[in-house]
Amino acid sequence: MTIIDPNQIPSRTGSNYPDRFKPVVAGREKKRLGEATGLKNFGVNLTTLLPKSRSALRHWHTKQDEFIYVISGELTLITDEGESILSAGQAAGFPAGVANGHCLYNHNEQVATYLEIGDRTPNDAGTYPDDDLVAIATEQGWQFTRKDGTPYSS
Amino acid sequence: MTIIDPNQIPSRTGSNYPDRFKPVVAGREKKRLGEATGLKNFGVNLTTLLPKSRSALRHWHTKQDEFIYVISGELTLITDEGESILSAGQAAGFPAGVANGHCLYNHNEQVATYLEIGDRTPNDAGTYPDDDLVAIATEQGWQFTRKDGTPYSS
Repeated sequence: MTIIDPNQIPSRTGSNYPDRFKPVVAGREKKRLGEATGLKNFGVNLTTLLPKSRSALRHWHTKQDEFIYVISGELTLITDEGESILSAGQAAGFPAGVANGHCLYNHNEQVATYLEIGDRTPNDAGTYPDDDLVAIATEQGWQFTRKDGTPYSS
Repeated sequence: MTIIDPNQIPSRTGSNYPDRFKPVVAGREKKRLGEATGLKNFGVNLTTLLPKSRSALRHWHTKQDEFIYVISGELTLITDEGESILSAGQAAGFPAGVANGHCLYNHNEQVATYLEIGDRTPNDAGTYPDDDLVAIATEQGWQFTRKDGTPYSS
């Protein structure tokens, strides 16, 4: 399928975080646009944050670049430098290996939507500065542990 | 620079096509948003097509995926299947290795803008079904020749 209308793509909720962290992203919905067109080298999601919800735990990647472009609404980006507001038409990039965790909040009463793009460079790892969590990319998907390497029970 | 306002990013015109093909894309302007944030694994451009202008010669890639998302205006996508209209909020993906050349036209009197994303998988090649042109990715950039391998003089 070459052309896609995002209205026709299913929204995915939920997360593969350990159970205790899942509520953090309960207000997040993703439409996997890139996958719907058969792409494999990078992912493009059209992501919706409901009012008062959050994109992710604050994190950074060792190998994979990330980029976001705001389509509608307003988002608050959190990094080591603090909070910044992004409006529709603004963008942000998070180069691989830059140890500055990021996540997005929708602090408003209106839905916010953005495109998020990330590549699929192997042997990636995610670091979570605010939480006792480490993510390792495996062929089976992300594997999450505590920072001391012990697994979460779920 | 983590956050970018595309209004602050310079627009690039011109192309690295051989001279005889450059007029095809004279109405195209690109803002390299991904590069502005330091990304290396993929590129994200905010591209403008002026009225009656064109994105590229029709082509496909052997190794690199491509994706576009229409921000404003209306675009006509050309593939082996013919013409399709894309409106703001619609998207299209072009997986690596699928031998179906594509390009975009802006047939309207209004400017059209879209995000275009492509990865940097090495050893890529571009095939141009409608033109006597082949592109090989080198460390110095794209190298264009005729289909018989002979170079263009400029």
